[in-house]
Amino acid sequence: MDAVNIDAMLARFAEQWSPKKIAQVNDYDVRIVKLQGEFTWHKHDDTDELFLVLSGELTIQLRDRQVVLRPRELFVVPRGTEHCPRADAETAVLLLEPSSVINTGDAGGDFTAAVETLS
Amino acid sequence: MDAVNIDAMLARFAEQWSPKKIAQVNDYDVRIVKLQGEFTWHKHDDTDELFLVLSGELTIQLRDRQVVLRPRELFVVPRGTEHCPRADAETAVLLLEPSSVINTGDAGGDFTAAVETLS
Repeated sequence: MDAVNIDAMLARFAEQWSPKKIAQVNDYDVRIVKLQGEFTWHKHDDTDELFLVLSGELTIQLRDRQVVLRPRELFVVPRGTEHCPRADAETAVLLLEPSSVINTGDAGGDFTAAVETLS
Repeated sequence: MDAVNIDAMLARFAEQWSPKKIAQVNDYDVRIVKLQGEFTWHKHDDTDELFLVLSGELTIQLRDRQVVLRPRELFVVPRGTEHCPRADAETAVLLLEPSSVINTGDAGGDFTAAVETLS
């Protein structure tokens, strides 16, 4: 593989809520996604999930509080924890999670998206 | 856990070549490290290792080429691949790797450092 420029990868797609894989570390994916609006409440029973904001502002709603992330801030949603991402303006996020993870976790529904690999 | 601000974490230490853990995703660590000069040639036989540059410029020397990374650029060194990081000016890097990984891999030596957790 070559070096991966995150901004060059972000420039290659416009669709929101559709994670793109940009690197793999063992059986984990590094994914980037553009978000705007509110996602669906869901959880991942078998894995933690890392969110690192690249641009914009992301609110991770949890059932008992919310976590606001700005660029160069990260948060790990623990396994089994219901969460619902929300962004008022378009926000770009780097995700780290096992390659098997589906974006909508246990919830399914219209937001469910296959992960395309950008290379 | 709370949101983790990477720059606030970087401001908490000055020592170079000493990775600090800032988050955990399952059995993986997110670590940050400040580098300057040349590390030691080593490899990790059991795992890939991700480097994401936060500031400065990192050269990852491989036996057959070198990869230069600037901020918002990343590279995954495949398992078993000899590599030697180098940075002319101080450079900050985010690392992702299994929590069991020792910074000097198979090489050992004076650069070997325990991983402190910043919380």
